[in-house]
Amino acid sequence: MDGAMQHLTDQLKQFRDERDWAQFHNPKDLALALSIEANELLEAYLWKSSEQADPAKVKEELADVFAFALLLADHYDFDVSEIVLDKMAQNAAKYPVAKAKGTAKKYTEL
Amino acid sequence: MDGAMQHLTDQLKQFRDERDWAQFHNPKDLALALSIEANELLEAYLWKSSEQADPAKVKEELADVFAFALLLADHYDFDVSEIVLDKMAQNAAKYPVAKAKGTAKKYTEL
Amino acid sequence: MDGAMQHLTDQLKQFRDERDWAQFHNPKDLALALSIEANELLEAYLWKSSEQADPAKVKEELADVFAFALLLADHYDFDVSEIVLDKMAQNAAKYPVAKAKGTAKKYTEL
Amino acid sequence: MDGAMQHLTDQLKQFRDERDWAQFHNPKDLALALSIEANELLEAYLWKSSEQADPAKVKEELADVFAFALLLADHYDFDVSEIVLDKMAQNAAKYPVAKAKGTAKKYTEL
Repeated sequence: MDGAMQHLTDQLKQFRDERDWAQFHNPKDLALALSIEANELLEAYLWKSSEQADPAKVKEELADVFAFALLLADHYDFDVSEIVLDKMAQNAAKYPVAKAKGTAKKYTEL
Repeated sequence: MDGAMQHLTDQLKQFRDERDWAQFHNPKDLALALSIEANELLEAYLWKSSEQADPAKVKEELADVFAFALLLADHYDFDVSEIVLDKMAQNAAKYPVAKAKGTAKKYTEL
Repeated sequence: MDGAMQHLTDQLKQFRDERDWAQFHNPKDLALALSIEANELLEAYLWKSSEQADPAKVKEELADVFAFALLLADHYDFDVSEIVLDKMAQNAAKYPVAKAKGTAKKYTEL
Repeated sequence: MDGAMQHLTDQLKQFRDERDWAQFHNPKDLALALSIEANELLEAYLWKSSEQADPAKVKEELADVFAFALLLADHYDFDVSEIVLDKMAQNAAKYPVAKAKGTAKKYTEL
């Protein structure tokens, strides 16, 4: 992992270890935490348009999403850049520009 | 944002723009997409222990989580390192080591 | 819809209308609310075994899940019993007893 | 529980027991399943307005939400009508008509 992302992960693990929390951080519960935080983020938009959401709340909840996503990636020794670029390559095959341009359809409907 | 994370975001935006998808990527729908991907990740653990989850599935779904989280951060011009470190500082106040060590309780119950 | 479920839905709509909330309750936002409540329920189990979850919290969050699910069903004029029984018939075809007995595999892997 | 809801729950349990699935259906995993289904429902609205969502997909995913919610309620011996009415009474105190009318604000902001 590159410098800044590795540094961030190291800080998150230090925070965790100072509190002796590694015992709770199994991957299944990290995935639960990630879904819970993604839904606290979603709550920033509930009953609202995008513009009405409070950026300060979005910022806090998105930070939590990144924190648990980085801890989960670290558990599996995934390099974030690598897994995202791999997935983009897969998606490029599922969503060729010629078919996917300008449509929000799922690849199964293209 | 640091080099590698900015580079990743740039690649995601290029992928999006080649397909003319910015029109669909309002923050509210990006937050929906993030929750949906976090739940596809959760499905890797459904009816299973952490060890029984397929790392290849985890890898793919976690990549999607990062992709939408990075696009959302970019929309608000958030620096990922900065927002995560800011949130960690807040959490350090909510979860002081002396009280939080070794317990999974929420800060409201400490 | 049968008596008790219809009665419950009527009470929920009365609660909503007394507060003039129908204007916010479009189906997309009801679906967001449902996911958010399902994740507040999930939080009852975070970092815990099933047995360690607080039934009082489960009860409250599950009630919210039912409330938004019933309002969404009402929006589309779905009869809850009918749609659940229809889906069970579909699932019976996807998960024939002979193949699915005793395994948690998804139908795509059976 | 009233007639129709109890009948539905009984059918769901029979389906489960014919497949010997009770061993997987601990409350924590049922809560995961509920969140996953709520997000498959959410996907019906992704990149779309409420009106653009396919009612047939909504119907199927909402049925799955009810199925897991009913199984979870049954696990705790909750009466659905009772828990929803109890929660409505709590919400009536949090959201008094005089304060909550016509606003989508959370009770913490009223």
